[in-house]
Amino acid sequence: MPAAGELDLAIRGGLCVTCDAAGTVTAGDLYIHDGRIVAVGGATRRARRNLDASGMIVMPGLMNLHDHLRDMTPGLDAAEGLKLDEMLRVWWRLNEAAGAAEYETMAAYSCARLLASGTTTVVDHLYPFHRDGLAEAAIAGYSSTGARWYLARGLMTRGYDPICEPLAVGLARVRALLAADVAAERIMLAPVSFRQADAGDYLAAREFAAAHGLRLYTHVAETEAEVRTVQAEHGCRPVELLDRLGFCGPDVTLVHCVLLSDAEIDLLATTGTHVVHCPSNHMKLAKGFTRVRDLLDAGVNVALGVDQMADMFCEVRQEVLLQSIRHEDPAVIPPALALRMATANGAAAVGLGGRLGELVVGALADVICVSARGLRIDPILDAAWSLVHRASGGDVRHVVVGGSVVIEDGEFAHLDVEALRKQAMGVIDSYLANTGIAKTRIEL
Amino acid sequence: MPAAGELDLAIRGGLCVTCDAAGTVTAGDLYIHDGRIVAVGGATRRARRNLDASGMIVMPGLMNLHDHLRDMTPGLDAAEGLKLDEMLRVWWRLNEAAGAAEYETMAAYSCARLLASGTTTVVDHLYPFHRDGLAEAAIAGYSSTGARWYLARGLMTRGYDPICEPLAVGLARVRALLAADVAAERIMLAPVSFRQADAGDYLAAREFAAAHGLRLYTHVAETEAEVRTVQAEHGCRPVELLDRLGFCGPDVTLVHCVLLSDAEIDLLATTGTHVVHCPSNHMKLAKGFTRVRDLLDAGVNVALGVDQMADMFCEVRQEVLLQSIRHEDPAVIPPALALRMATANGAAAVGLGGRLGELVVGALADVICVSARGLRIDPILDAAWSLVHRASGGDVRHVVVGGSVVIEDGEFAHLDVEALRKQAMGVIDSYLANTGIAKTRIEL
Repeated sequence: MPAAGELDLAIRGGLCVTCDAAGTVTAGDLYIHDGRIVAVGGATRRARRNLDASGMIVMPGLMNLHDHLRDMTPGLDAAEGLKLDEMLRVWWRLNEAAGAAEYETMAAYSCARLLASGTTTVVDHLYPFHRDGLAEAAIAGYSSTGARWYLARGLMTRGYDPICEPLAVGLARVRALLAADVAAERIMLAPVSFRQADAGDYLAAREFAAAHGLRLYTHVAETEAEVRTVQAEHGCRPVELLDRLGFCGPDVTLVHCVLLSDAEIDLLATTGTHVVHCPSNHMKLAKGFTRVRDLLDAGVNVALGVDQMADMFCEVRQEVLLQSIRHEDPAVIPPALALRMATANGAAAVGLGGRLGELVVGALADVICVSARGLRIDPILDAAWSLVHRASGGDVRHVVVGGSVVIEDGEFAHLDVEALRKQAMGVIDSYLANTGIAKTRIEL
Repeated sequence: MPAAGELDLAIRGGLCVTCDAAGTVTAGDLYIHDGRIVAVGGATRRARRNLDASGMIVMPGLMNLHDHLRDMTPGLDAAEGLKLDEMLRVWWRLNEAAGAAEYETMAAYSCARLLASGTTTVVDHLYPFHRDGLAEAAIAGYSSTGARWYLARGLMTRGYDPICEPLAVGLARVRALLAADVAAERIMLAPVSFRQADAGDYLAAREFAAAHGLRLYTHVAETEAEVRTVQAEHGCRPVELLDRLGFCGPDVTLVHCVLLSDAEIDLLATTGTHVVHCPSNHMKLAKGFTRVRDLLDAGVNVALGVDQMADMFCEVRQEVLLQSIRHEDPAVIPPALALRMATANGAAAVGLGGRLGELVVGALADVICVSARGLRIDPILDAAWSLVHRASGGDVRHVVVGGSVVIEDGEFAHLDVEALRKQAMGVIDSYLANTGIAKTRIEL
């Protein structure tokens, strides 16, 4: 630790909900230097910059392990009332009208929205790549906001011809990204699903990922139709097929996993494969009930994703509520575990277990401060309970990513949000105008 | 309508989501006079007072048809992880330590919290009455905030001796309230449940209500144990028993109704009995899935309640999400219907159908303005969708009840919220100290 007086940042006067494995909650100042946490509580030290967190809960930034930022808006609202497969048709028509400007603006707008509601890390499952420059544009969008980002680089080789990309073209585009110095650790290779990619694409993705040091990512086991199709074509269930294709492992994240057999849960546990659950999305799109408790009991790392719904605080609460009713057990997901799913478990899924998503010395300093004194939240008997059951994205006051202050007192430090909003609304207007979707935007 | 220039209040520049049966959404000013809505849109008129609603959605105040305000905090947090029957034991021990000061302060604090998050009407299911003056204290609390309140006056004659009240004492206390000029329309007679009152109490309540012009209210069909007990003791299911006791009818509201047979749904429809559903509470306490869509299809009026969870916006969204996954149909509760459940259906359940809970000419002017321009909510393609899936209680800016401005720009007009909060925290501290519950409050 550097000498007193030389620290970069102190977050003072808050209650630290560390989200470590022991569920430690501690009053005291949090110190950050060189992008990392150097002390939680302890002796008072000087720092070059100070954030006042009195009346606030200080916790790790939330980690959104699954989203599609270009579709965040308009997305679900344009496809209200439709089930997944029909909804995807609407989205793909919208996607068809999108180009680099749309990808960049919506990546930035959605990241800004997530940051403002306390999410510091997002994995953007980005597809389709039906024009050149889309990944580069999205990366420019993420980067402009200060969010910690991962690009789950979709491979969509079938499903809706106008926006498909041949496998070889997709892999060449990823090679170009790497050649342009995008860090391999930021890219996950992500065949979209068995609807939009075939077994050969998954095999090729595994091989390519191994050669280039990329992680893997995909949607799987999301609908009954998918399970039936895979069973008919391959004689096994979807996660079993992934395993046969060598696609499971500790460098792999599987999203949704709504329909799992006992054998598939064992496979996920044995291979160390990560799972992402998106409870509100599963509810709204009527997908079904993922066996989250069984996965956790088997030792599988389960993280959470927003997947276009409201914000990560909603998802944390939703996971508790959904599993409680599903298991008819109010204790099935305790508050501290729900918070871990949204922080430390997300970190493990991006390969940073123990080094992100917890307020522990040495971890990357992604930290949020949540207003927790006042009518909406008091009284607090258990800080984790209150975060889960009372807090919402609107209560977030300060956001720090990698030691940099991105939001202070609710205001972005370096981003003109109103200008970005206007730009995003313009993009959405033209985006809607260029599709056959009979919806228009209301400007208030 | 009074002449131009004489109107009491104009809410200008918002988008009105009227929550009427047709789902009308209209831009334009809303005019209020003498506690009622006199125009929605139309020609511009002068008013003595103006609220700026530009960038906001204007809608009826939300109606919370079920809560227990004295327990709102500490309530669920003190009983984390417990199922209903065990949780009630914790609450009852807390209740035992409560007196008039606790009832008044917590009624006020909880009403203030609800108002700030857009709920203008609350039905407080209040029990136990183990000391004199508790109803009067609670009424003083509600009234101090400006909320529209209904006291569902509990009758608890069994279950936990230290806080039970003999039936005759309970009815005498209600008589005293009425004699002290509490309007009969504000009181519902509310045997707590078949756990805490017997069939004779229900019969007596019906008779007393008829004699005094009171509405009726109770918890019913909430757990498997309750259904089994009623079947063993009476040879029928709980709602069937209520009907036999003459307890069903258009002046009756039944809360929870988790476990209903087809015959019971028919009974509710035939008798015009109202139902209140509390989705997040049912999820957290692992009660099960109420047949909400079947009730609506049968023509039963179903309203919503917070029941100690976060706020009514959460409940509106939760109802959509919960029924979608339950029925595996994303369209099962459209956004406009969810909003009606939280507004107009609540009005019907308190006997004010068509006269409250909709922005229509002649209705009581309970109106809220929700901030809807900006990063959190834009773009808006469908205002009802955005209210359901993007808004939260923290977005409420103005609150008007019966034509009176209770909150303007997020600030209470006549209530010192910080003083109330401090008072409430003091009450909670002594409340916890006087029980055997090993929890303490954290002051941030």
